[in-house]
Amino acid sequence: MSILVVGSVALDTVKTPFGRVEEALGGSATYFSTSASYFTDVKVVAVVGEDFPEKHVNFLKTRRVDLKGLGRVPGRTFRWEGFYDYDLNKAHTMKTELGVFETFRPEIPQEYRDAEVVFLANIDPVLQRNILSQVKAPKLVAADTMNFWIESKRDELVETLKLVDILTINDAETRELAGEPNLVKAARKIIGMGPRTLIVKRGEYGVLMFNGANTFSAPAYPLESVFDPTGAGDTFAGGFMGYIASIMDWKDGNLRKALVMGSVMASFAVEDFSLGGISALDYREIEKRFREFKRLSHFEDL
Amino acid sequence: MSILVVGSVALDTVKTPFGRVEEALGGSATYFSTSASYFTDVKVVAVVGEDFPEKHVNFLKTRRVDLKGLGRVPGRTFRWEGFYDYDLNKAHTMKTELGVFETFRPEIPQEYRDAEVVFLANIDPVLQRNILSQVKAPKLVAADTMNFWIESKRDELVETLKLVDILTINDAETRELAGEPNLVKAARKIIGMGPRTLIVKRGEYGVLMFNGANTFSAPAYPLESVFDPTGAGDTFAGGFMGYIASIMDWKDGNLRKALVMGSVMASFAVEDFSLGGISALDYREIEKRFREFKRLSHFEDL
Repeated sequence: MSILVVGSVALDTVKTPFGRVEEALGGSATYFSTSASYFTDVKVVAVVGEDFPEKHVNFLKTRRVDLKGLGRVPGRTFRWEGFYDYDLNKAHTMKTELGVFETFRPEIPQEYRDAEVVFLANIDPVLQRNILSQVKAPKLVAADTMNFWIESKRDELVETLKLVDILTINDAETRELAGEPNLVKAARKIIGMGPRTLIVKRGEYGVLMFNGANTFSAPAYPLESVFDPTGAGDTFAGGFMGYIASIMDWKDGNLRKALVMGSVMASFAVEDFSLGGISALDYREIEKRFREFKRLSHFEDL
Repeated sequence: MSILVVGSVALDTVKTPFGRVEEALGGSATYFSTSASYFTDVKVVAVVGEDFPEKHVNFLKTRRVDLKGLGRVPGRTFRWEGFYDYDLNKAHTMKTELGVFETFRPEIPQEYRDAEVVFLANIDPVLQRNILSQVKAPKLVAADTMNFWIESKRDELVETLKLVDILTINDAETRELAGEPNLVKAARKIIGMGPRTLIVKRGEYGVLMFNGANTFSAPAYPLESVFDPTGAGDTFAGGFMGYIASIMDWKDGNLRKALVMGSVMASFAVEDFSLGGISALDYREIEKRFREFKRLSHFEDL
């Protein structure tokens, strides 16, 4: 089944201890759809300005991403500038220029409205709800959010969560959203708000999934060369949702495999700047790293 | 095979958001030996002052810990006072009173000198080496250390590492000791210094083991009630070494199981203050939690 993703398409200027890129392709919808494209068809709803380079559109076309929902409007494309120091878990924002993203009011194209799988990237929870109202009968809705919305639009976010099956956030956000320092208790509170599955992203420490009564922990792949963590969370979500959408069965065992698949994709993404790490993977490389994750976390019974 | 452990026996005053204990039993050798005692016999070399309460000696006797090497000398027992706030990964030291520990020069009793398995808890690397010189033919030597020794006695520590098979440290210390921000590269550098196995402790994020060409990641158990993380690292080491000493075979698959066993013991330890969480476990509880770790990290092939 194909996936509808709504989020940002951006131009990122990023500096890490290992290099720098300027106005490189970025944005949540970009990372998500590129990652998910290895598993299923992806339809993107996003907006760019008149200055958006055609080469980036062409790149997304090489990944067979459906761009009918990518609006091009007068103004400048969303730009983000930031840096990381040796603690690659923490992004330092230097400049955010919303540009055309500031007035983004996602209009879902008619031919996208029967989407069964929807990913709402990290945008205003009011817009997230508005998107869902335009989709006829979604079977699986996943969403991302961040501390900015938890702090500035908590009530709206709580309304949106009632419509969400799977929420992906980081651990500080989990504690903040629940108002509870213990992660397990915080997860249970959030699951009580609507989502039946909570995925807690922990950067280089991996991912923790609370799915009903089940808890699953996947490590991050210990990499020798981490160049740029930008987009790792959206790449993770793309691999996770892409895999699940390709089998359309979200029993716990499949969600576990999907979580590892998301971690696999994220591990490739951080090995290069921008989309470099996931722009042209061979599916056998993906399967090989999946097996490496198994070796990384496997142990025998007593 | 029994284990010889050399480390501290202390009186801890600890405050966490969940309570407080005063002059409770603590110290690296105490946590280690109590934890390891579920798997094998443990011989302790440590020192306490004349003020050390007899009830603590009696407790260690209930765990069948061999205390012939526990010296009792004039002066006060080592005391540590500290607190944790909601970030339980970080201990804040308020007071350290070394007492009799300051002049501790471990003398290994004659009947301990044929020990085959040795754990050198976090003490001066010069003393660690001195201890090893008193042991006839150790087959497996594991050691712990900390940033204090990395910064103040680096050369001595490097000498000691040449004699160590397994080193346990946390991730910041791994980077600091190697002078290398990337954890994988740092681990390889440390393995080049002597240890064939490096265990990186990451608190609530679990443990990462670099063992020759193999890497293994074990999660920490997501607990609803974490009361006091004091001693978690030494409890982990006790479970790990206790299990390995009980089978005396350190092939990779066994080290993985031992790593999980250490994590199991640490998960019990943090559920109560002082030794409360591991003072009287039933072995079936340990096996049950081991199976829960398996459920927590297990996933199927694609």
